[in-house]
Amino acid sequence: MRIELLTTGTELLLGTTQNTHGAWLGQELFKIGLRIARQVTVPDGPAVIEAMHDAAEAADVLLVTGGLGPTSDDLTREAVSEVFGVELLEDAAALGTIEKFFAERGREMAEANRKQALAPVGADILPNPNGTAPGLYVPPRLTGDRQCAVFLLPGPPVEMYPMYHAEVVPRLEALAGIEAVPGMLELKFVGIGESDFHQGIDDALEQIAGLEVGYCARLGEVDLRLVGAPDVIAAGRELALAQFGKQLVSDDGSSLEETVVRLLKARGKFVATAESCTGGLIATRLTDVPGASEVFGYGFVTYANEAKRDVLGVSWDDLEKHGAVSEPVARQMAEGALRVSGADVAVAVTGIAGPAGGSEEKPVGTVFLAVAEKDGSTKVVRQMHPRGRAAFRRAVSQSALEMVRRVLAR
Amino acid sequence: MRIELLTTGTELLLGTTQNTHGAWLGQELFKIGLRIARQVTVPDGPAVIEAMHDAAEAADVLLVTGGLGPTSDDLTREAVSEVFGVELLEDAAALGTIEKFFAERGREMAEANRKQALAPVGADILPNPNGTAPGLYVPPRLTGDRQCAVFLLPGPPVEMYPMYHAEVVPRLEALAGIEAVPGMLELKFVGIGESDFHQGIDDALEQIAGLEVGYCARLGEVDLRLVGAPDVIAAGRELALAQFGKQLVSDDGSSLEETVVRLLKARGKFVATAESCTGGLIATRLTDVPGASEVFGYGFVTYANEAKRDVLGVSWDDLEKHGAVSEPVARQMAEGALRVSGADVAVAVTGIAGPAGGSEEKPVGTVFLAVAEKDGSTKVVRQMHPRGRAAFRRAVSQSALEMVRRVLAR
Repeated sequence: MRIELLTTGTELLLGTTQNTHGAWLGQELFKIGLRIARQVTVPDGPAVIEAMHDAAEAADVLLVTGGLGPTSDDLTREAVSEVFGVELLEDAAALGTIEKFFAERGREMAEANRKQALAPVGADILPNPNGTAPGLYVPPRLTGDRQCAVFLLPGPPVEMYPMYHAEVVPRLEALAGIEAVPGMLELKFVGIGESDFHQGIDDALEQIAGLEVGYCARLGEVDLRLVGAPDVIAAGRELALAQFGKQLVSDDGSSLEETVVRLLKARGKFVATAESCTGGLIATRLTDVPGASEVFGYGFVTYANEAKRDVLGVSWDDLEKHGAVSEPVARQMAEGALRVSGADVAVAVTGIAGPAGGSEEKPVGTVFLAVAEKDGSTKVVRQMHPRGRAAFRRAVSQSALEMVRRVLAR
Repeated sequence: MRIELLTTGTELLLGTTQNTHGAWLGQELFKIGLRIARQVTVPDGPAVIEAMHDAAEAADVLLVTGGLGPTSDDLTREAVSEVFGVELLEDAAALGTIEKFFAERGREMAEANRKQALAPVGADILPNPNGTAPGLYVPPRLTGDRQCAVFLLPGPPVEMYPMYHAEVVPRLEALAGIEAVPGMLELKFVGIGESDFHQGIDDALEQIAGLEVGYCARLGEVDLRLVGAPDVIAAGRELALAQFGKQLVSDDGSSLEETVVRLLKARGKFVATAESCTGGLIATRLTDVPGASEVFGYGFVTYANEAKRDVLGVSWDDLEKHGAVSEPVARQMAEGALRVSGADVAVAVTGIAGPAGGSEEKPVGTVFLAVAEKDGSTKVVRQMHPRGRAAFRRAVSQSALEMVRRVLAR
């Protein structure tokens, strides 16, 4: 069953409103074993009619969101009428519900809202307890050489989400004759690229019959998506972890920082941060996670050499001799943060974000990262991330959090 | 000029990744007087070819994001080749750049990455300093009865955004004959909402003949967009500044943090930060700006009460008596940061980000902000931002930077 999604709204294409319906509906549909084959977004107005015509010729089910409002550019009902050749009639019950909605709030219904009671002949009216516009369901109708069913849903998520669950899901299940729903597992890895999978296990994964494999790569991380029956997913998971288990961050969608905070909580440990080039980004990411205060108390942004010396006790001699971006300075930053904070683990980074500040020996993109442990040794690594300033900072924070995760995962 | 956007990626329709390209590109294109007429999203794989075929028949310019990776489901290059009937050839320079990208990171290029050096004959290779996949530009070609130009851009925002600015904008401007586009001025305000404009000067702005007015509201800030001839824009600008001049951040697109860093540089001053609830976000935003080291040396993330006491010298009595989220603690955090850092200005925030930690007297969303000046007084304000955790932190960092800006702009 081919499902298409048509999201309407000028604001979505001007970018003043983020279009989240595709992601939300994609997740929800997947839970009942269905997928969106194509999503199309058009501005309010006549473009809706054209887009609906296109979709009706390709889809078995078309979901439309938005365009059910009372103003003149809300044309979704008219588009259905035109594309599917059905007349619009005022529905008395729907009109009563809209009038009641206003009356309950002590307001009078504007004449413009009357339009929201129009429904194509033969359509089901889908109640909307959270707004004025009812949804509409037009059962499969022939357009061209294809049968297509259409759901018209309101745009605001507070109206659309409940209507989807109450009215759309049962009808979709009946249309699709839902049988065995495949499962999905998302494994999140850091420190490796998509090409590592390609060289490592891609072929072996493809050998597993009935397993669908997908990748989503971001800076310094890759998500591996496995779709199929439970035993097939388990086989894929085993294969991936045998090769890249050490790089696994989570198998439940958790981000790296969420994983680090969870590991710290589980082990009853505190982490401290000492940041130069990332300027507070590592602390910001850790404290993005609710409950971070249980595992994080002290963060230091020692951007100036004087701050590294005064706050963290880094040797001025070493700063002068080796430079701020050096192995001994990274080491002393981490150890100083550990000492001052009393934390169990401290991570420090010092590097050259650019665009200025590079040299032949230490070009822009050079960074030293250190992790110090109470009752343990300090580990320092040198990395190179020759990217733009923002990407450099993101990549360094990623490496730093990953170093902490490895220490905790031991 | 009709522009269409094709975003590719199975994860976008499964909902595991939010599709933000439409909103971002919509905003950016509007800045140069262009709009997206339709956005289509399809999964990786053969659907890309069909969608590109559709788009090429309707658009003058097609922007495609994603599908430039090294794996077998990355089919965007192949789709261009098929839809536009151009051969793909390995580009030696592009291959060299990819090999260099890996070499600089001490890694060997996988054979799969070789595919990323394939380019349609006649295409421009668009450099990607932030990743392996170069972008591609295919100048207008006839498909069916229409000329269509195509840009292929990488999916990750850290790669796509810089490439858009460096490579796409100049070509779009040439294609569109952008000098015909009227002037645009963007005034960035903080601390007021879109409704302040509606109540304040919206009617007066509409009286100015030939002036197109637009707003873009984000958390705690509004951009006022004026489009028209120079004298008309000047009239609109004068009107807006007479009413809201004190809230003006910039008239050149500069962000609040860029404006703060610029003001600090101009006055030869240093700023320090002391953060509790924002967890380093204020320091992160300041150091997002290149050259921040000239004006920022010390940042403190004092998440724990002990850190506020040990690092910044906040009175333990006051912490116990008034709580960490209180006027005296905010004041002492700012004054402590000023003292320890030797900076000229220090800003401190302490609040309740939630979801837990609120009380009747101080509900989630409560925050105290303080700005201390060397040779000056300390100012403390209490604000309320009852939003989700991430939005709260963003709004508080915005208020804190705005307080610093006001001190500097005096």
